[in-house]
Amino acid sequence: MVLEPATATQTAAPAMPQLKDELDIVIPTIRNLDFLEMWRPFFQPYHLIIVQDGDPSKTIKVPPGFDYELYNRNDINKILGPKASCISFKDSACRCFGYMVSKKKYIFTIDDDCFVAKDPSGKAVNALEQHIKNLLCPSTPFFFNTLYDPFREGADFVRGYPFSLREGVPTAVSHGLWLNIPDYDAPTQLVKPLERNTRFVDAVLTIPKGTLFPMCGMNLAFDRDLIGPAMYFGLMGDGQPIGRYDDMWAGWCIKVICDHLGLGVKTGLPYIYHSKASNPFVNLRKEYKGIFWQEEIIPFFQQVVLPKDCTTVQKCYIELAKQVKEKLSKVDPYFDKLGDAMVTWIKAWDELNPPSVLNGKAS
Amino acid sequence: MVLEPATATQTAAPAMPQLKDELDIVIPTIRNLDFLEMWRPFFQPYHLIIVQDGDPSKTIKVPPGFDYELYNRNDINKILGPKASCISFKDSACRCFGYMVSKKKYIFTIDDDCFVAKDPSGKAVNALEQHIKNLLCPSTPFFFNTLYDPFREGADFVRGYPFSLREGVPTAVSHGLWLNIPDYDAPTQLVKPLERNTRFVDAVLTIPKGTLFPMCGMNLAFDRDLIGPAMYFGLMGDGQPIGRYDDMWAGWCIKVICDHLGLGVKTGLPYIYHSKASNPFVNLRKEYKGIFWQEEIIPFFQQVVLPKDCTTVQKCYIELAKQVKEKLSKVDPYFDKLGDAMVTWIKAWDELNPPSVLNGKAS
Repeated sequence: MVLEPATATQTAAPAMPQLKDELDIVIPTIRNLDFLEMWRPFFQPYHLIIVQDGDPSKTIKVPPGFDYELYNRNDINKILGPKASCISFKDSACRCFGYMVSKKKYIFTIDDDCFVAKDPSGKAVNALEQHIKNLLCPSTPFFFNTLYDPFREGADFVRGYPFSLREGVPTAVSHGLWLNIPDYDAPTQLVKPLERNTRFVDAVLTIPKGTLFPMCGMNLAFDRDLIGPAMYFGLMGDGQPIGRYDDMWAGWCIKVICDHLGLGVKTGLPYIYHSKASNPFVNLRKEYKGIFWQEEIIPFFQQVVLPKDCTTVQKCYIELAKQVKEKLSKVDPYFDKLGDAMVTWIKAWDELNPPSVLNGKAS
Repeated sequence: MVLEPATATQTAAPAMPQLKDELDIVIPTIRNLDFLEMWRPFFQPYHLIIVQDGDPSKTIKVPPGFDYELYNRNDINKILGPKASCISFKDSACRCFGYMVSKKKYIFTIDDDCFVAKDPSGKAVNALEQHIKNLLCPSTPFFFNTLYDPFREGADFVRGYPFSLREGVPTAVSHGLWLNIPDYDAPTQLVKPLERNTRFVDAVLTIPKGTLFPMCGMNLAFDRDLIGPAMYFGLMGDGQPIGRYDDMWAGWCIKVICDHLGLGVKTGLPYIYHSKASNPFVNLRKEYKGIFWQEEIIPFFQQVVLPKDCTTVQKCYIELAKQVKEKLSKVDPYFDKLGDAMVTWIKAWDELNPPSVLNGKAS
């Protein structure tokens, strides 16, 4: 099978873009955004938030016709002041600044080396449309449905699925997948340099309660109101001992908080076409410590218990930061710093998103 | 999409049938087994165990060329004596007698209204071959892999998957799915009489530890040595207040025991083509009590804790029987009887499968 990105996307644009005024597309980048040309029919109706990483004096070209705001490091420093320390530099983890400055209910974030995939019939996949579908229909984290998403057309809950659980719960996160270059770690990249993902699995499923997963930030959507303050991509890149664990960290944090708050996390469709493998040698250097650390981080997240009085994402996240400092600092002093940054992130989030205005209630 | 079973299966038979002498195919039936004609290229190399339900004086015709043994109710009564009370009558739950009399390591069980499905390319699906693949490669119940089965060709563990968990654990159960008539309960059948499953999801995945699922007995394979004694399909049908929960009950029992013992349960491929919807009115009568009961059964199974000294399937199952009697008898006296039958089942199992011979060790 020859796997290529879609080329003709013009015809596949939806007549009425859903959530047009309620969703921002966040793109971290260091280069001109030519990749947007291919996404034009799907993305053009939406507002973009571009987070420019690296040298702020460089000009990032955005193709004409897109509605966007762009933040470089100088902007981030100006807006957050000393709290800008919680936003990573020279790492795509900086994207989470875009989540914070958005004023919309939903976020879709995508990497600039991701193109439009084709489904098995050859049709261009409107990834954003599928993410919106995923977010707008419930999740089912408490019991597994063997026919996958029971809310999808042509599917339902199967025999033996308790009726009391069929309402489902609100979906907070939609995790999409990648054709072509799979999201492998450096050791797997080194061992399987030629492996390409050519299997289109036509399914969306809820990741069950109590189960952790490796969340990739390449093709991801979420509900800011439900989980936004936990979507922090940590301290990576410049000045940090680790990289490429930004989305993983966020994934572990959001999963335990979603489990605690009774929210859903889905994975599966939509696919994007991931064009270019990153350098495995560079990746190994970035991941090196993480390979060891994750052996202790995973058991930590598997055992985390959040107290009952943690009733908001912010409260959950502050509690999690406390436990990270208590339990993971012995792994490496980095986690003490990370725990502090998690608290700073929440302070900055609340400053930019005053609860009374956003949620219509004082807190 | 017009969905039809495969017709030409002759060409798709494997050259060397795997596990030929280590696997039995168990078929519960009340009719002549003409459906085997279609499965001939895939099933003929294997031994069949046919469990004849209903009137034992009726003759079941088996197409020529198949190697089989057949048990009717008289045989079951003769072999098990008073312990035959644990084997259901006038319900396909009787199939579990076949698991008990088998002397092989693996079982594949299939209903006689299930035909050969076609994959999206039109190729006949050798369901048995896929089940064997599923059973022979490890499961990953402790962490979710977003690219599904990491052991499949073209796939692997993704970035962020802890390396210490990549060995996986032995797979005890492989749960296959159904194209055409989905396995719906009576209320869903009544509401959606025309719904057909036409979606071929090209995936196998491990059901995570701690997550229950609705196990359907229509297209199911398992490792007898690893989980056989827990594959009891309960008391259903004649003289019982409930039907159509046989496989569900077994699924909840095997899942908590697999979780306790560190064994894997997979679901997904292979598909069979399920030809005929059962009567929803008849089904409603059978399921009626189960619809209420499952609302208490599921929380029971979600909270079951098996003590550490339950180190064999038998010990786990006896303990589970005890807890069923203690905790579910208040739901209905039926569960007291079921708990007793679970103990009888284990006694009968051990009689027919003396541990010292089967496992090569005295117990």
